[in-house]
Amino acid sequence: MIDVLIEKIKKTGNPTVAGLDPKLEYVPEEMKKAAFSEYGNGFEGAANAILRFNKALIDCLCDIVPAVKPQSAYYEMYGVCGIRTLCETIEYARSKGMYVIVDAKRGDIGATSEAYATAYLGETNLDGAFAPAFGADSMTVNPYLGTDGVKPFADLCEKNGKSIFVLVKTSNKSSGELQDLMVDGKPIYEYIADLVNQWGGGSRGKYGYANVGAVVGATYPQQAETLRKIMPSAYFLVPGYGAQGGTAKDVKKSFNGDGLGAIVNASRSIMCAYMKNGGTLQDAARAEAVRMRDDITSVL
Amino acid sequence: MIDVLIEKIKKTGNPTVAGLDPKLEYVPEEMKKAAFSEYGNGFEGAANAILRFNKALIDCLCDIVPAVKPQSAYYEMYGVCGIRTLCETIEYARSKGMYVIVDAKRGDIGATSEAYATAYLGETNLDGAFAPAFGADSMTVNPYLGTDGVKPFADLCEKNGKSIFVLVKTSNKSSGELQDLMVDGKPIYEYIADLVNQWGGGSRGKYGYANVGAVVGATYPQQAETLRKIMPSAYFLVPGYGAQGGTAKDVKKSFNGDGLGAIVNASRSIMCAYMKNGGTLQDAARAEAVRMRDDITSVL
Repeated sequence: MIDVLIEKIKKTGNPTVAGLDPKLEYVPEEMKKAAFSEYGNGFEGAANAILRFNKALIDCLCDIVPAVKPQSAYYEMYGVCGIRTLCETIEYARSKGMYVIVDAKRGDIGATSEAYATAYLGETNLDGAFAPAFGADSMTVNPYLGTDGVKPFADLCEKNGKSIFVLVKTSNKSSGELQDLMVDGKPIYEYIADLVNQWGGGSRGKYGYANVGAVVGATYPQQAETLRKIMPSAYFLVPGYGAQGGTAKDVKKSFNGDGLGAIVNASRSIMCAYMKNGGTLQDAARAEAVRMRDDITSVL
Repeated sequence: MIDVLIEKIKKTGNPTVAGLDPKLEYVPEEMKKAAFSEYGNGFEGAANAILRFNKALIDCLCDIVPAVKPQSAYYEMYGVCGIRTLCETIEYARSKGMYVIVDAKRGDIGATSEAYATAYLGETNLDGAFAPAFGADSMTVNPYLGTDGVKPFADLCEKNGKSIFVLVKTSNKSSGELQDLMVDGKPIYEYIADLVNQWGGGSRGKYGYANVGAVVGATYPQQAETLRKIMPSAYFLVPGYGAQGGTAKDVKKSFNGDGLGAIVNASRSIMCAYMKNGGTLQDAARAEAVRMRDDITSVL
């Protein structure tokens, strides 16, 4: 339910999410050494190093940042061990009160999207018993296959009190190749925005937002301004702040007048703050999270 | 390398791929019982049942079918244990000489696509040592983010002798919502087809095909005919034959005059043949694979 996220944002006074896209080279040397010496120099050691890294970040952020966004690719890179770290990261973050958005960008034909939705937001049928495979609060979804690829995710949001963010206008340089093509004087991303409204259905939480949100890159503030108008009740997940070039003024376009409506992601700038600014992993990450929060809330 | 797939297709005289989208309810009762009694009634038992099911299918198909296509969603549904089954299925199918296309439909911003490509088609950096996380031959890729989301996959194909299939026109009912929108008199899927040609670059294998192929649904034969002309050197992965409604006549449009250029997928009709036609899992699956091969090759 998007309300759960909104309440965490209100409680912390912080509309940001910490991306957990952990490359092995971001893990402090001592932490890496400890993991490799305990679990060996293979996938298990690497995945454990990343788990330690994530837990340290979650510990130092959980009282001031409402959500984390693990990027699935950086766990899949370590195979089975990486997926175990992803599961344990989700569980740990939730145990610390954080909202967990798995950035997996899944999307397929209907029956297969249903399987993906079940994996991340639902409970898997184990021959009669049911259990959550990943147990996340939310995930990102790719709209290329249209309604029957997205509907199973949206349906599970309603049923299980979860949320999704559908890719509308992504933050990367080449996003326009497909997303900006003009159809009858209207760019594709606006068509997808109309679909996001449809997929959100009629139900609204107590703050007026739907459980189907949108990914809108901070690097395209003009498009964000238009999309904010087209999708007034969709929550925006906003990547591209900081390292990719988006500023506080840019991300402001993704918020509504109520000061809600968007959650801004930063990954590298928080994870790697200690490399750039010195200090411990935890102190530097926390200081950067505070700086980002203050930078963004100052313009709202 | 697409040549590796083509040679397996030539050797078996069979341009089809068996989809491994194993739901627990497809697994024969005895096989399921054995797995649950050995590994318990949770994710481990379920994932082991599916591994047994996959191995039985691979055993009875590997001398007559050139490739398998595990659909990642049906493994992710079982969490860490499911991913272990996916890895073991890939390894087992390759050990039996089959080409493995992971149907994962990944696609993200550049750095993240690089991580996905590494996970499935490359070798992960484990603090200086390198090892494959999934070790597949090929995978499916979603083009919504444009060139910088696809290029890392294409580059790894060239470097590591792998192949990818980019979603162009998918087989599902609502695929047209986005893919058929008209831009200057040309549907989006043709724009993506032009990009597939670019992403394939100049290099061709010894049969004239690029390592970047396309997913083109059997359920849209007219579009397939057009796309075949636009992308003469792209191999087509063709879902939608059989259960979804595509016929041999329909899939013929995806082939070139050389009898090559396409590989047709069937999942449920092979996996569940024993439920429909009786007999053992293996005998029924093999008979259905032969029927499908003969049906398709009869029109080429």
